[in-house]
Amino acid sequence: MKGTRISIYDTTLRDGAQGEGVHFTVKDKLLYLQMMYNSGIDYFEAGWPGSNPKDDELFAMIAAQKIALPPKEEGKRSARIAAFGSTCKVNESPENSDILRRLLAAGTDTVTIFGKTWGLHVTEVLRTSLEENLRIIQESVRFLVQAGKEVIFDAEHFFDGWKEDPAYAMQCLEAALAGGAKGLVLCDTNGGTFCQDISRGVQAVKKALAPEVLGIHAHNDGGLAVANSLAAVEAGANQIQGCLNGMGERCGNANLSTLIPWLQLKLGYDVLEPEALQKLTHYSRYVADLINYPFDTKQPFVGRSAFAHKAGMHVDAVIKDKRTFEHIDPSLVGNERRILVSEQSGKANICERLRRFRPDIEKDDPLVEETMQRIKEAENQGYQYETAEGSLDLLCLDALGDFEPPFVLVDCHVWSDPLRGELDSVAVIKVKVKDQSVHVAAEGDGPVNALDKALRNTLSTFFPVIEESQLVDYKVRVLDGSQGTDAVVRVVVETRHGLDSWGTIGISNNILRASSRALLDALYVVILKDQGKIPKK
Amino acid sequence: MKGTRISIYDTTLRDGAQGEGVHFTVKDKLLYLQMMYNSGIDYFEAGWPGSNPKDDELFAMIAAQKIALPPKEEGKRSARIAAFGSTCKVNESPENSDILRRLLAAGTDTVTIFGKTWGLHVTEVLRTSLEENLRIIQESVRFLVQAGKEVIFDAEHFFDGWKEDPAYAMQCLEAALAGGAKGLVLCDTNGGTFCQDISRGVQAVKKALAPEVLGIHAHNDGGLAVANSLAAVEAGANQIQGCLNGMGERCGNANLSTLIPWLQLKLGYDVLEPEALQKLTHYSRYVADLINYPFDTKQPFVGRSAFAHKAGMHVDAVIKDKRTFEHIDPSLVGNERRILVSEQSGKANICERLRRFRPDIEKDDPLVEETMQRIKEAENQGYQYETAEGSLDLLCLDALGDFEPPFVLVDCHVWSDPLRGELDSVAVIKVKVKDQSVHVAAEGDGPVNALDKALRNTLSTFFPVIEESQLVDYKVRVLDGSQGTDAVVRVVVETRHGLDSWGTIGISNNILRASSRALLDALYVVILKDQGKIPKK
Repeated sequence: MKGTRISIYDTTLRDGAQGEGVHFTVKDKLLYLQMMYNSGIDYFEAGWPGSNPKDDELFAMIAAQKIALPPKEEGKRSARIAAFGSTCKVNESPENSDILRRLLAAGTDTVTIFGKTWGLHVTEVLRTSLEENLRIIQESVRFLVQAGKEVIFDAEHFFDGWKEDPAYAMQCLEAALAGGAKGLVLCDTNGGTFCQDISRGVQAVKKALAPEVLGIHAHNDGGLAVANSLAAVEAGANQIQGCLNGMGERCGNANLSTLIPWLQLKLGYDVLEPEALQKLTHYSRYVADLINYPFDTKQPFVGRSAFAHKAGMHVDAVIKDKRTFEHIDPSLVGNERRILVSEQSGKANICERLRRFRPDIEKDDPLVEETMQRIKEAENQGYQYETAEGSLDLLCLDALGDFEPPFVLVDCHVWSDPLRGELDSVAVIKVKVKDQSVHVAAEGDGPVNALDKALRNTLSTFFPVIEESQLVDYKVRVLDGSQGTDAVVRVVVETRHGLDSWGTIGISNNILRASSRALLDALYVVILKDQGKIPKK
Repeated sequence: MKGTRISIYDTTLRDGAQGEGVHFTVKDKLLYLQMMYNSGIDYFEAGWPGSNPKDDELFAMIAAQKIALPPKEEGKRSARIAAFGSTCKVNESPENSDILRRLLAAGTDTVTIFGKTWGLHVTEVLRTSLEENLRIIQESVRFLVQAGKEVIFDAEHFFDGWKEDPAYAMQCLEAALAGGAKGLVLCDTNGGTFCQDISRGVQAVKKALAPEVLGIHAHNDGGLAVANSLAAVEAGANQIQGCLNGMGERCGNANLSTLIPWLQLKLGYDVLEPEALQKLTHYSRYVADLINYPFDTKQPFVGRSAFAHKAGMHVDAVIKDKRTFEHIDPSLVGNERRILVSEQSGKANICERLRRFRPDIEKDDPLVEETMQRIKEAENQGYQYETAEGSLDLLCLDALGDFEPPFVLVDCHVWSDPLRGELDSVAVIKVKVKDQSVHVAAEGDGPVNALDKALRNTLSTFFPVIEESQLVDYKVRVLDGSQGTDAVVRVVVETRHGLDSWGTIGISNNILRASSRALLDALYVVILKDQGKIPKK
């Protein structure tokens, strides 16, 4: 219902960290918590005490209040940090449980423990009786509650269990409530449940037990984690567990970057602080950057492609009325519209791009056609300007006859001795700036670094702005794998200058040549933006 | 209902091609059609005649029957190729329409045209009257039908239109039927519609018009394209339009790689030929490879991570009973279970891995603990073995005391002159095989290629199997962007030998050193697999 509060339980740092290729350091986790703490998210599940040394270190810092979380802001919700773990073991009393002892030692106000609710797991994995499983759930929860903790019970495999034996699945939940659990979270742990079954399960629990907090924890193995979480909310759940960018084991957890705007913008629930919603794109990309996680450009709401228009007719329509091809205003989640230029582009796209330099240019100007042809030719060679907007700006400037290279690389030699150790490469370059020629050598770690250093050292004397910019990512793709290391490679370099950032591109079958082209373009753009010849973002 | 036929309309080559970063050559499209033609997919939308030279070339080949599609197989469904386009223009008669003329010239039996069904688009984009829009729909369809075509009408923005003015949206569909359209496809073009509204819209159309073919075309801007397509089928739709891997403009189209197993395996509909379903993982990865599209490892059903288990407790349970953490048997879609090894891994994962070499090793063997520690240390430096199973095998062999390097790289120097042109780099290496030392030089395109060539030239004399293997991908990631080109980089090399393939990894702040480590590991694995010291897949 409009205005109803839905609480978000963010498990990016715990279940998200179980995803393939996801690695958080203690510092990463701390940076994440600091960034998100006052966003309106209610819970952050920060880790699993005892499962690995990093999580132990993090919770020790929390317990010693060494963690510099932002102060609570007046009139705003404050987040809670939860420690995650499991019930005590079979035939063990809670008092003797290492797992529960470590959870208490973690020093959080909230503890979330999972327990089995599917007979298969009780008999085949725990290898115990259904009764013993009920005991360990109830006693574990009670032990934590008596120690003063707020306890959330994650009902692992609830929907699989409920389908097979609804009475037993419900008894497991009752055991948790009898132990004093504040919340029950129904988990679709294997992620294969259909929306309608999620609805029915949530309704049944709400009707039978009406817990104070009724949560959903959906996995995306069937591609339905978002739909299943929304179905649960519509069926009466009031808490959603998930991860930014849908990170998590196998196919990931329910994607909070998608769910939050759905709930808040489209269904009218009360979720994040309004200004936090406008940072959602930033949050999502930041955490991916932080841990070098491949950020899905197609991701709903927050992806780089989410409001990117490529087909000429779409661009034409969006220019007339943005509602024609945008389901929400991208700025509501801090994202932006992008007009892509590619061989499929109509003149409308190219014209929009050229207007960055000549605001009055019209679609029927022959320069528009000419630019389009140049782009098509370059794309036939393997260039892709969609991710290299810096190089595209240079191409546009050149097509308009306004490109004068601020410097020229005249000569370039690189030596490398990769078994030697540090600073094993030397680049010798000759650069011409206006009428002045400069010969410079620089050593570096690897040939690309040596070349980059030689370029930056020489050029920052002429163009001090270069020192303020930095190369933030460097990507290489083999375009035709069948040629092995002789294949044509595409190098894309991402450069940042203040809040502005852009990609530049180089193509060659020599990785060093492709890199040098992308590096040159990157420096050209730094200089030309500084000189006002290319508009900043 | 179980057994009901759902027809799949694959628009990977048309709407998929409108995705950012998607580029099909004519040859790519042909390879795609050849691979998928007898899979049981009913329609392939191959392109948009007249929109770009590639599509014109493709349809000209189809019209001249120059396209080598596989012959129809006895007792199997045969696919149809559809040409995509739009209605004629405002105030234009179909006879004078370039668009429709080109669609006829494309020579396909089936033509799909889209038309507007949302008043906003009629008045703001077409800038005409609601009546004129009905005329162009009806007359365009009739013109194509009279020319002998099977016509499918894509009702663009149907759900947005229907929400705002249900009567007009329905009139648009009636106009298409009046013109003789065989199918009506309801499009959630902007991708922002909620499942329940999709159900209601489909039910309303089915009740009012009961077309022979009632399709759904969902976009993923709200992350619900799969859920919305399933909701449409449950509400009575009998055709689904989508793309493999969810490719497509902005956030992509409904993902056929997810929808097909849902429909066939979980909901019991009749979709693909049974043996084709077992190739779904292959199809999905093949098309991504073909066009160098970043394949989402987390993708449901077909992703590399879809059945990859990382948390130790999950691995333990899956070994006991695979149903505990797998919602389907991965082999049903041609995928496979993977046991990941990472710092989060419990001993169960490591033990499974070591059993590849020593089948009788037990979890409590000290070698398991020791291997786990080595992996944790390496991962702290930035190694990630999840995508580098070749290097992981070498680490395991070494931990077991069974690794003897088949050769050693003793010395290595590389010169490059990246402005020179082809073969601009020279590598001089010294390699020791048993007691024999060899000094070799090789030139190559770029330093990595020169090094790779020198290694392969020297070593294939000793180990002829090296010539049968090939490097198929080469990836570089900057691990800490703040250091620019001096940052630590991770190089992952993908090597293929016959049907077997594996990744190897190198970490260094010198890209050449990281590359050489990954290349050495790749060659070690080729040789050791050949010698039977590492099991093949």
